[in-house]
Parts: sequence; C-alpha cells; structure tokens
Amino acid sequence: MTSTLEGMETPALLLDEARMDRNIERMRKQVQRLGVAFRPHVKTSKCIEVARRMMGSWEGPITVSTLLEADYFAGRGVKDILYAVCIAPNKLDHVLALQARGVRMSIILDSVDAAQMVVERLADAPDIGVLIEVDSDGHRSGVKPDSAELLRIGLTLEASGIAVRGVMTHAGSSYDCRSADAIRAMAEQERTAIVLAAERLRAAGIACPVVSLGSTPTGLYAEHLEGVTELRAGVYVFFDLVMAGLGVCAVDDIALSVLATVIGHQREKGWTLLDAGWMAMSRDRGTASQPVDQGYGLVCDLEGRPLRDYILVGANQEHGIMAARPGSGADGLHLPIGTQVRILPNHACSTAAQYGEYHVVAPPLQLKATWQRFSGW
Amino acid sequence: MTSTLEGMETPALLLDEARMDRNIERMRKQVQRLGVAFRPHVKTSKCIEVARRMMGSWEGPITVSTLLEADYFAGRGVKDILYAVCIAPNKLDHVLALQARGVRMSIILDSVDAAQMVVERLADAPDIGVLIEVDSDGHRSGVKPDSAELLRIGLTLEASGIAVRGVMTHAGSSYDCRSADAIRAMAEQERTAIVLAAERLRAAGIACPVVSLGSTPTGLYAEHLEGVTELRAGVYVFFDLVMAGLGVCAVDDIALSVLATVIGHQREKGWTLLDAGWMAMSRDRGTASQPVDQGYGLVCDLEGRPLRDYILVGANQEHGIMAARPGSGADGLHLPIGTQVRILPNHACSTAAQYGEYHVVAPPLQLKATWQRFSGW
Repeated sequence: MTSTLEGMETPALLLDEARMDRNIERMRKQVQRLGVAFRPHVKTSKCIEVARRMMGSWEGPITVSTLLEADYFAGRGVKDILYAVCIAPNKLDHVLALQARGVRMSIILDSVDAAQMVVERLADAPDIGVLIEVDSDGHRSGVKPDSAELLRIGLTLEASGIAVRGVMTHAGSSYDCRSADAIRAMAEQERTAIVLAAERLRAAGIACPVVSLGSTPTGLYAEHLEGVTELRAGVYVFFDLVMAGLGVCAVDDIALSVLATVIGHQREKGWTLLDAGWMAMSRDRGTASQPVDQGYGLVCDLEGRPLRDYILVGANQEHGIMAARPGSGADGLHLPIGTQVRILPNHACSTAAQYGEYHVVAPPLQLKATWQRFSGW
Repeated sequence: MTSTLEGMETPALLLDEARMDRNIERMRKQVQRLGVAFRPHVKTSKCIEVARRMMGSWEGPITVSTLLEADYFAGRGVKDILYAVCIAPNKLDHVLALQARGVRMSIILDSVDAAQMVVERLADAPDIGVLIEVDSDGHRSGVKPDSAELLRIGLTLEASGIAVRGVMTHAGSSYDCRSADAIRAMAEQERTAIVLAAERLRAAGIACPVVSLGSTPTGLYAEHLEGVTELRAGVYVFFDLVMAGLGVCAVDDIALSVLATVIGHQREKGWTLLDAGWMAMSRDRGTASQPVDQGYGLVCDLEGRPLRDYILVGANQEHGIMAARPGSGADGLHLPIGTQVRILPNHACSTAAQYGEYHVVAPPLQLKATWQRFSGW
C-alpha cells in the first residue's frame, strides 16, 4: 500500500480520521447533554469501521436506509436495526429473514393501508418493531401528528396484536434553513410534533415507548429533547459543504475529500481541468440553493487547505472544470499538469456512494488504512 | 432467480434487451453508411455482456473513461483500448501495465507540457498510441485545431521518436442542441475541426493516421464523415430522457429503467412516495435545462408504458416523490402501496452507476438474466 498521497492514482476518496473523530465526539457530547439514546444513521458511510465509532456498542443500535445496509451490518454483529423508509410488501420477507438471524428489526409505516398489509404479513412475527412515521415539516413521508389517521394506524396495529413500538420523524427541511435560529426553531418543531404524536397515541391507550427524531442540523441545534427517547443523525460523521453552508460545521470540519489530479488547461477561459468529474463528485449540487454556491466542490491543496476562491464550476463524467468562483475576481492560479488537489464535496452521502473504499489519511499526507464501503440495494 | 418482475425487491435496475439491441442496430447501420471504423464507448454500461454487443469483435476496439474500465475489459479479452481522458503522470504506470498485458493502449493529451511528460516516461514504450485531443466546440479539454500549440505538441512527440497516432475530439456540446438541424451543424463542426487538425499535422510532416470523433447525437446525425477514420459513441446503447428531449431517440427507445415500489402518499399534495430516490436515480437533472423537465425521471407502469404526466418531482436519498408534472393539470392517479412502477432516467450513465447489476427483461415482465457491472476507478 502507498504510504503517502503523493503519486496516488486518482480520483480517490479520502477520509481525514482526526476530523471524523472530532465530529463524532461533538455529537456524542450533544447526545449526552440531551439525555437521550442515540441511533446513528449509517447510510452516509456504509462502512463498519466508521459505524463502530458512531455506535454506543458494536451491537448497535443503528438506523439504515436500505435492507442491504441491514444485511451488511447484521453480518458484522449489529443486533438492533431500524429500517427508516416506509415498508413495502416486497421487503417484508427480507425483514423477516433479518429478524430470523437474531437482529431486533424495526420498520416504519405511515398509513392504515400499510398497517393492514403489515398485520396480514407479520401476524406470526410480532417481535418485529413497528413505528409510525410522523411528518413534522411537510418534507416527504409521514402522517400528521394531529391527524385522525395517526390514531387509526395505531389502533389497526394494536387490534391485531402488534404493539406500536413508537413514533419517529425526520425534519429534513432543516437542510433548507438559513440561520442557526431557524435550525433551532426547526428542532423544536420536530420535537413538539413527535411528542404530540406520542401523547395522542398514549391517550388512546397505546404505550408507544419509543419517541425518535433527528437530522444532523436539528440534532446539533436542539436545546432540549423533553419527551423524546432517541436521536438519529448520520451525515455529521463526515459533514460536507451543504452543512458548512448551513453553518452547522466549519469547512475545516469536513472529513471527506476527493483526491484529483490536474490533467490540462483552457488558459484563455481560466480553466484547470481535473480528473474528477461528476462521477467522482456525484451530480449533487446541494449548495446551488445556498448563499455560496460551491459548484461541484471546493478545491483544496494536497494538504487540504482550501484554495478559497476555486471551485469546480462544471463537470463532465470524468472531467472537472476548476475555475475561480464567479464574481470572486480571483485569477492567475497556475497548477501544472500532475498537480494533486483535494476537493470537498457538496454532499457526503452522494459523493461517498461513488466509491468502493475510503483512504484514511492523517495530516499532512500519510495514508493510514483503506476501509471498504458498499453501495446498492 | 425470480423469473418475473412482480414482487422483486426494489429499487432495481432493469435493462430492456430488445430496445438495447434495436439501439445497437441503429448505430451499426449509421456507422456502415458513414464508412468509418467504430470504437464504442463502454463507460455507460461498464458491462461485458453489453459491450460485446456494441463491439465489432470481442477484441475491441473500445473507448474507456477510466483505467478500471481498461482493466476490466482487458481481463475479458479486449485488445485495443483508447483511454479518452487526458493522461496524467500518476496514471502512466497503469497504462504501461495494461500494454504489458498485451493490450494495444492509446492515450490522449492536449498540451506541450503533457507531451514532454509523456516523452520522458514513455521513451522505452513507443508502442503506446498517443493521440492529440482537439477542442471542436469549447466544451471542455483539447487544443484548438487552428492553434500553433497543436503543431508544437505533434513536433514535441515526433522529435522524441513517439509517432502521433492521431487526433480525436468529442463534441459534448451536442447535448445542449435544441433541434435536429443544430445537431447536424454540430456534427459538421466536429468533423471539420478534427479534419483541419489532421491536415495541419500532415502538412507539418506528421502522418496522423487516426482521425477520431464522436458523441451519440453527432454520430447519429452526421451526414458524412469525409476525412474521418473512426467514430466513438456510448450512451446510444441505452438512451435516456436527455437524449429523448434532444430528439435523438424516442421515449420508447430508452432501454434502462428503475423498478420501484409505492411506499406511501401525501394525498393533499398529490404525492405518491416511491422507494427510489436520488440514490436510485442519481442526482442527474439533465432535463432541467430542456424544454420538458422530467424531474428525477419519468414514471411508467410495470410494463414500461409511460404515465405521461407523472414524474419524480423531488427526491431524497431513498424516497422519490411522484406527482403530476407541474402545469399538466393531471391528478387523481391512485397507486396503492406495493404497486410497482418503472422510472426512466435522465441520464443512463449516471443512473446505471448507482447499481451493481442489470436485470435483463423481456416484455412484458420476464426476467431473462442478471448482468454484473462495476463502478469506481
């Protein structure tokens, strides 16, 4: 294995271990302060070495976004898994197989139709946890916390002998906030919604032991989580430019970067061509709607120091076009062919998904390890 | 193996073999009519079963966008490979290793600096083909066909005993055309640029046997390719919504789709939630700048018939939000939880990259085979 970044084939995905550990420690302290359980989301890393540092114990608990993640982590000793996407009939056999392997599985749903489907299929497997997804921000799925449907779902399940394990929500709208105050307000909105849902179920005679919420922004900005039992968050482990643009982290907290190499220039346009295009960065343009648009990524030198005014202004499949940020007035940066740079990603989840491994780096240029990750379903 | 799509776990990538074969046949006839050699680009499929149908012989030639593609296809008998991204010093050892395995490798470059680097490193490996990349449309890399730099690169190489194998260009701007006439004009612009480059090199005493160009739109719309020896194209094998929006194919020619399942609703918003989000579709929004914005993809029924006014209007990592196209006036579509649909992708290259395999389907619902594909570098 190469022991330094210099001369490494590119593009390659780098993980700054010290930054990751610092991010994990920050969340750990916040969870401790909040006094709730923590169920990290492992969809960002899809990597056991990363997930074990996030988990309280090597047996979990964790949150997953796919059943392939559940398979992978179950095969590495995790015993408590929440599949946090509404369940469909064609996934129930898979969930049952995971439960049969000794995993304490939880699934979610947000309608009476789904509850009836689950009742029919899980009658003989009452140990699978069923949570009701609550919509706390109009962002995507979930039932409204003040709706009649919430109670109907709970009663449909309990009438058939399936105890409602709890309620869960994810305030994904927190990614669109524009200030710390707005994130704090969103965190409180997320909390009040999920607590209301739990209280209404309890008033209807449903115990609802788990009250789960979370996203990286709301988790880090929540002032208190009264009435909540469990926090979930994932992207905090690496952070990214979207989170930095939101003010949730500093650019220097971003643990993930793409190592790339200069392959050419179009000097009259001020372009430096890199061998990291949208396949290497992903097509994610999450900062496009933020005050500072980072293009396809913010370019840093090999040691990871941002070349503040240089971003990927465009990308083809395997070509990144590096240039001064429009309006910055910067020019004249000459990086010869063969120069290596590191590019910070807009979105850690989507960029990491383009790679099969993390190259773990220690400053300035040392390669410490290679950690495998997976993609797909 | 499941023999039908029904009940299959989702999301999953489907490949309609009959459509693919029809697309391949269309390009084969066009190449025959044009009277040039054909060097298919395999970056779209990254799959030997697909590539073998595109190639004239199982030994190639092919075009690749990464050296991992070169490794994979070399390991499956391909003997003639053009790596069509400008070469960097940290990739030369890899190219030499491929050549040592018996592959006839070609690389490209577009500057005197790169030519000097190649001269130093390839002095003992003169058999590696070196082509000069020409910029025919201002799209990304390449030297201008009428520039002094073109001749300087050629002379730098030849003075050191490296014969220029040829010139190549890719009119990527053809993806932004808005009419058949505009694509035809772009095809002619691509041809005249590359022929000019070859003629100028020849006038300077450089033989330049290979004159290579291509993209799917210009390849299919070129009226003649006088002076050209080789055409390259890739995405035509599957086509996608961007190509359909461009008029290069019909929606019914798109061979790739994502099988997804209904997991919920937000009825008051007209939303149907699917288990295919941006991880399943990719973040590619290539139709956003076209006359018809297809969101994150056009939804079809399980048999592949478009639900014409229904698209993914939004996407989270594992959630797709299906709704009527804004302005279409459509409403009232009720797809119960568990309903399976197929979603046509904006961009075949980026969507396919999210998967490890193609499920090959024959109409209406039969699963014929599973073909592996790879990603990464």
